[in-house]
Order: sequence, then structure tokens, then C-alpha cells
Amino acid sequence: MDAEALAAFMARAFPQVAADFAIERVAPREIEVRLRVDERHLRPGGTVSGPSMFALADVSVYLAVLAMIGPEALAVTTGCSMDFMRKPAAATDMIARCRLLKLGRALAVGDVLVFSEGMEEPVARATMTYSIPPARG
Amino acid sequence: MDAEALAAFMARAFPQVAADFAIERVAPREIEVRLRVDERHLRPGGTVSGPSMFALADVSVYLAVLAMIGPEALAVTTGCSMDFMRKPAAATDMIARCRLLKLGRALAVGDVLVFSEGMEEPVARATMTYSIPPARG
Amino acid sequence: MDAEALAAFMARAFPQVAADFAIERVAPREIEVRLRVDERHLRPGGTVSGPSMFALADVSVYLAVLAMIGPEALAVTTGCSMDFMRKPAAATDMIARCRLLKLGRALAVGDVLVFSEGMEEPVARATMTYSIPPARG
Amino acid sequence: MDAEALAAFMARAFPQVAADFAIERVAPREIEVRLRVDERHLRPGGTVSGPSMFALADVSVYLAVLAMIGPEALAVTTGCSMDFMRKPAAATDMIARCRLLKLGRALAVGDVLVFSEGMEEPVARATMTYSIPPARG
Repeated sequence: MDAEALAAFMARAFPQVAADFAIERVAPREIEVRLRVDERHLRPGGTVSGPSMFALADVSVYLAVLAMIGPEALAVTTGCSMDFMRKPAAATDMIARCRLLKLGRALAVGDVLVFSEGMEEPVARATMTYSIPPARG
Repeated sequence: MDAEALAAFMARAFPQVAADFAIERVAPREIEVRLRVDERHLRPGGTVSGPSMFALADVSVYLAVLAMIGPEALAVTTGCSMDFMRKPAAATDMIARCRLLKLGRALAVGDVLVFSEGMEEPVARATMTYSIPPARG
Repeated sequence: MDAEALAAFMARAFPQVAADFAIERVAPREIEVRLRVDERHLRPGGTVSGPSMFALADVSVYLAVLAMIGPEALAVTTGCSMDFMRKPAAATDMIARCRLLKLGRALAVGDVLVFSEGMEEPVARATMTYSIPPARG
Repeated sequence: MDAEALAAFMARAFPQVAADFAIERVAPREIEVRLRVDERHLRPGGTVSGPSMFALADVSVYLAVLAMIGPEALAVTTGCSMDFMRKPAAATDMIARCRLLKLGRALAVGDVLVFSEGMEEPVARATMTYSIPPARG
């Protein structure tokens, strides 16, 4: 699936959140996703909230998996680790750069760096593990 | 700080999300927090979303720390690990049971089990690490 | 499998490390395992090393899984998160208290608190995820 | 500190394990470390054990921090997350490629990919968090 197909899938499967995210780039085992930062993603002071960054990292790995195996909407997050390393820039879009480190038949592991747009150093890192259910033949 | 003081602090400091959470119980180094599940926390099929569970675990450890050290609104999440183990019940409130394993001068570590209300087995577990900035003398 | 059967299995399957560990207690979904601390587990100053605590947490979850499903020596660690919260007592045995939070057909998740024997507060916490391969019919 | 200075420091500060590791490459915020795989690192079947890979990841981040801030032997691991993604090659040296994502005054975060020498895909990934104590003025 390319960026357009992924965006169409998101809009259909997750209408509540699809507008928050934009797919910037898709390559084999890699994806770059933008969080269009809005009032509801912010904490007092204009900082993007932890749950919003979690959501961005999670959706990035999900889309990177889908891009490789097709619209298998049942893939589910089973584990996550995340480090919050710097304060994000106030009220600025965030960019997740994701790389799949493993794409097995049952399990996928994706690594994500999360940046405030325009900042060189990552704000956060995350690893997400996805369980891929057997194909429904 | 007791449950009432914590709730008042939340309403003042985080007006955007305070209404999502209710403090069920506070004890030394322990807290129980409810996520009042609403349309915006759900994924298609009625499942509570991962970011909503992350938010619940995060706020629980934050409030457990505040309950012990006072309204130090600057405590920030530095790390998290989370395992999603079961499907939550559809459109049902979630309860986080949090215990502080460490409350040092600079660092706090809290363990959380997240339940769908009425289910015996936990839906998720999380560990959150908070950095506590030096007191502003 | 009870404590005796587990110890016999360890001695047979992992002769190199079995003598490091003693099974203190087995109950449904719970286990307590001792690390018999020896010169080779120590860092300068007498502190038990991080890898030794990792090994203790890992073997505890492994044995807790085996106690429930039988000597399925192929169960493999797929993920781990660990927090090191206090300095262990010098040259003192360590005790891991493990609880299985999930024991599914394909995946097990165990939570572990690691104590220096005689200390009340945990030195470390760990979560270990094990993948359980399908039974070889 | 360059590779030679780091190796000398290891031999002095950690005589028990220094011989297990060789520093392959040092660059600003990056390091590559080899685990010289030996009988005692192996599980039955010749697989490198989980604790050995943990030790390799841990020492890599430690040395990457030291290379930047000098022989501050008191830096301590506070947290770790690790994913084991593939079976290592039997009885083969392992290489850790580490990158510091954050090097603050009090906290460092390093990301590590662990390879069996000669394999293209990583066997494991790890993130290690180190606490850096204030300088002893």
C-alpha cells in the first residue's frame, strides 16, 4: 500500500482520528507520519501531550505494517516502550520516523523517533510491538 | 493531598482532560483512578484505544506522586513501558490501580494495572517513570 | 510442575546456570526464585550486576510459565522492560517474586519484583514477555 | 575518551568482564562494541543467552556515555527495554551498535541494535537509560 491507499484506509477504518495524521513518506519498512497538532493535543503551556505522542508512534508502526502486509485491520499493539527526552516545541506539528526492525508472520517490531517539526534532536523514542493474527483464509 | 485536593488540582491544571478521570481511592503510595469512557476514547467496535489507556496509566502515576509530594505540577514523564494483554470490555469504564515502587528526590517509578470495570484479569500493565525537578526554593 | 520437578528440569536443560538459582516457592501463576549470589555476579564494591538481575528475572518468568504448561523448553523471551530503583545490598542473595499476568496460547507476560534478601523495598522491577511456540503434535 | 582509553578504563574498573568486550569504533555519541562469545555466554544449542546480550547492550551505552563525559564510573543504569527479534547465529561474536539519543546533565538515553557478526538483520534492540550523578566537585 502506498501513502494514498494508507490514508484512504485510515479515513475508512478510523474516522475519529484519521484527520489528525498525514502520511509524509512511505518506503519499504519505513514510514514518516505527521501529527497535525491541534488544541486537543496540547497541555497547558502549549506542550504536546504524552498520549498524543504515544498515539503518533502507535499509528506510525501500524501503518508501516499495513504498508507491507495490506489492510489487515486486526493487527493489535501488544507492547510498547517509550522515552520522553526533550520538551516538544510549543504548538508545532510532530513528525514520527518509523522503521520496522522485524516483520514476522505473527509479530512485528517498529522503532520510532518523534520530532517537533524543525528540531534536530528527537523529542521521544518508542518501540511498538504488534501481533499479527493469522490470515482469515 | 487527598482525593478531593487532587481532583481540584486536576480541574485547575488540566481543564481539558480533568473530566475524563475520577479518583476512586488514595492511600500512601497507592491510588485508583477511573477513566470515564466516552465516545472519544473508543476505537471502532467499542474498544478503548491504546492512547486512552496510556493517558489513564500516566495520570495515575502522576496523581500518586502528587498525593505524596504536593502539587508539583512540573513532574514530567521520562519513560514508560506498557503491555496490552487482553481486549477491554466494550464501552466500559476502565480502572487503573497504581502503586509507587520508588519515590526518590529526583525520580519516581509507578506500576499500574489497568482493568475494564468488572473484569478480573488486567487488560494492560504499565510502568511510568517520572522526573521530579528540584524544589523551587 | 512443582518446585522439585522444575529444579530437575533446570539441571538437565541448563546445566551451566542451574546451580545459580533455587526455587523458593511455586503457586498457581506465581513463583519465587533465589539467586545464590557469588563472586561472578558482583561488580566492584559488591553490588550485584545488572545482567545477573536480568538473568534472575528472566529465569523466574520462564519457570513460572513451565510450572503451568510443562517442560516446553522452547519458550523464548521476546521482550523485557526493567527498572533499577535501588542499590542492592552487598554480596547478598537476591529474591525474585514473579506473577504471570497473562498466560495465553502464544504469549505469556510475567511481572517480577527483585529484592535483596532482607530488604523491604524492591531493588528492581521487570516485565518479561515470552513467546510460546505451538505444541509439536 | 577514545577506544584505547575506554578499554584501559574497563580493564581497571571491571576486571571480571573487561575481556569479554572489545571496542570496535568510537565516534561522537556513537560506539560499536563486540561481545567475544565464549562457552559461558551460550545456551544449549549454541545460542547466545539473553543476559549476555543485555550485558553487551548495557556496557555499550555505558561506554558511549563515558566516551563523552569522561571516566565517571558512577553512572548507573536506571532503566532498560529490550526486544529479542531473531535467533542469534550459533557461537558467533555479537556486535552492538549504539547511539546516544540524549546526553543531559542528569540522564542519558542510548539506543542499541545487536547483531550476530555477519548477519544483516538485528537479533535484538535495546534502550538503556543511565543516571549521571552530579560531579563530585
